[in-house]
Amino acid sequence: MSRYWSNTAKALQPYVPGEQPKLANLVKLNTNENPYGPSPKVLAALHDEIGDSLRLYPDPEGSRLKAAVADYFGNISPSQVFVGNGSDEVLAHAFLALLKHDKAILFPDITYSFYPVYCRLHGIDHVAVPLTENYEIRPSDYLQPNGGIIFPNPNAPTGRALPLADIERIVSANPDSVVVVDEAYVDFGAESAVALVGKYVNLLVVHTLSKSRSLAGLRVGYAVGDSGLIEALDRVKNSFNSYPLGRLALAGAVAAMEDRAWFDRSRRAVMRSRDVLTEEMRSLGFEVLPSTANFIFARHPHRDASALTQALRERSIIVRHFRQPRIEQFLRISIGTDEQCGELVSALREIMSA
Amino acid sequence: MSRYWSNTAKALQPYVPGEQPKLANLVKLNTNENPYGPSPKVLAALHDEIGDSLRLYPDPEGSRLKAAVADYFGNISPSQVFVGNGSDEVLAHAFLALLKHDKAILFPDITYSFYPVYCRLHGIDHVAVPLTENYEIRPSDYLQPNGGIIFPNPNAPTGRALPLADIERIVSANPDSVVVVDEAYVDFGAESAVALVGKYVNLLVVHTLSKSRSLAGLRVGYAVGDSGLIEALDRVKNSFNSYPLGRLALAGAVAAMEDRAWFDRSRRAVMRSRDVLTEEMRSLGFEVLPSTANFIFARHPHRDASALTQALRERSIIVRHFRQPRIEQFLRISIGTDEQCGELVSALREIMSA
Repeated sequence: MSRYWSNTAKALQPYVPGEQPKLANLVKLNTNENPYGPSPKVLAALHDEIGDSLRLYPDPEGSRLKAAVADYFGNISPSQVFVGNGSDEVLAHAFLALLKHDKAILFPDITYSFYPVYCRLHGIDHVAVPLTENYEIRPSDYLQPNGGIIFPNPNAPTGRALPLADIERIVSANPDSVVVVDEAYVDFGAESAVALVGKYVNLLVVHTLSKSRSLAGLRVGYAVGDSGLIEALDRVKNSFNSYPLGRLALAGAVAAMEDRAWFDRSRRAVMRSRDVLTEEMRSLGFEVLPSTANFIFARHPHRDASALTQALRERSIIVRHFRQPRIEQFLRISIGTDEQCGELVSALREIMSA
Repeated sequence: MSRYWSNTAKALQPYVPGEQPKLANLVKLNTNENPYGPSPKVLAALHDEIGDSLRLYPDPEGSRLKAAVADYFGNISPSQVFVGNGSDEVLAHAFLALLKHDKAILFPDITYSFYPVYCRLHGIDHVAVPLTENYEIRPSDYLQPNGGIIFPNPNAPTGRALPLADIERIVSANPDSVVVVDEAYVDFGAESAVALVGKYVNLLVVHTLSKSRSLAGLRVGYAVGDSGLIEALDRVKNSFNSYPLGRLALAGAVAAMEDRAWFDRSRRAVMRSRDVLTEEMRSLGFEVLPSTANFIFARHPHRDASALTQALRERSIIVRHFRQPRIEQFLRISIGTDEQCGELVSALREIMSA
């Protein structure tokens, strides 16, 4: 720490992302990447965009991408779309623009661990609302006074989803607050709240192209909501970085939103593998929470999660383990290819029979 | 404005970037882009990076790019480099991490108009220090008490540079403050303060790949300074967005830093064109400030800048005009190809002879 740091910089507790090991030949099941590559149409669009025009600034509004997102959903207009450099950037702006009020905001005690980091960055108080014993969000817990609400659906790292009716109950019961539903994993089997955007002016839904569209390496996310909310995000964005998305990110993202066939094939393959892996893990004695995400959250009644993580690592299989109250005995395992899932199961069988 | 907006969102006065018209066939001299495309080696590196690996997150640290920047300068190590999504993002983080203190920061009254926007975003007081009558920064003006100092060198939109000895005078006289030198345009003829980084722990130098490396469309910038300052930037970055640079941005930027021959050819061509254009503008009766940037700042004693901007626009030539005290009679003209500069001069000659 240096005397030159601002008090803000001194007080931060930065987010720690899942490890990105530089070794090859790992079975990397720790950061919820899609095991299948992006659409060939995305790759073609990226190749097409490479040329002298990279000397020029991109469209600061990302208009073509906003239109492609609106087209994808059908029930919204481009003015209801905000685009950013990954959904983490979109969330960071949403915290500052829409969740920073006098009252504390609410989010689950077990959730995406970036939320408390944003709170500290922007000086926002929060209340961590405990999940139930079964690691579920209980909608009635979100009817207390608040300055805003945010939760992932499905939740991370549990993978458990709320039905749309429960989301609507939370949104409609909080007309004075913005409710942000972080749908990073929604395409793997949960119901999207984008269906409610036209009905509630206080609902913001955040998506990423990193998971179901296999573009973690491109950095694109977006938010959908009432144009009044989008305008606040645009104000923050235009006070921070006019051009968050480069020409390649914009071109690739447009192509990704357009190729529905590839998107459907990819997410369905992941869902099938998840369901198979869930059964296999259960047959090994693991408790696996019901997941609608591209990962599972599992614990074994007699095996320490930290020891399992280490033993897997020695076999070049990387999973994520959170040293955090209530979930320190769980492993979060991203869904890989069927072959990778098979390697994981074999390794666990071997470790547990040793 | 909506009741859902935070007080921060309500109080913002967002930056307005130069127009990015979607029309073709414009002579676009308004946003200081390089008229020559990026290095063919950059284009090749981008093509090579396109593939299934885009499904994976990029290196959150950008280690290869930090190493490439350190290699380029030779006198610094990767731990003295911070990388971000364009120099605007780097600057935004620097304001929050290093310039937000109890005392007001100092910057010129005529300078990059994003600085007061960052101040408002992050709640930082500032004092606008008047440039001299000749639109120069006077180093002795920066010896007053302050919470930090920032200025571009060469300054924008004037194009005037301070010699390195004057920069050093400001840095050494302010050991309790961070001095940020924003060198977006330094490669077009000014002296870089990176040479001083090993000597002063309070100096941060910010660069972009948008101008001299022709990559405005890719969005990459970086900062060089003492590792204590870099660590503060990393803390803010890791509380905001773990992965600001995608795989393509990282790969293209590494190749751009490595291709010194292309970089030198491109910036020298721009400098030659600038010097020719400066002479031609002077022969048309314009006063042109001495520029070491890839733009000139010029006014005519008898011609209104707003009317000239409009008349050029009618001829499909776009320049930038700031409606701002002290400079409302200036045009800021980016250096285009020799052909584009020629079209500008012909158009001005025609307009002024009408």
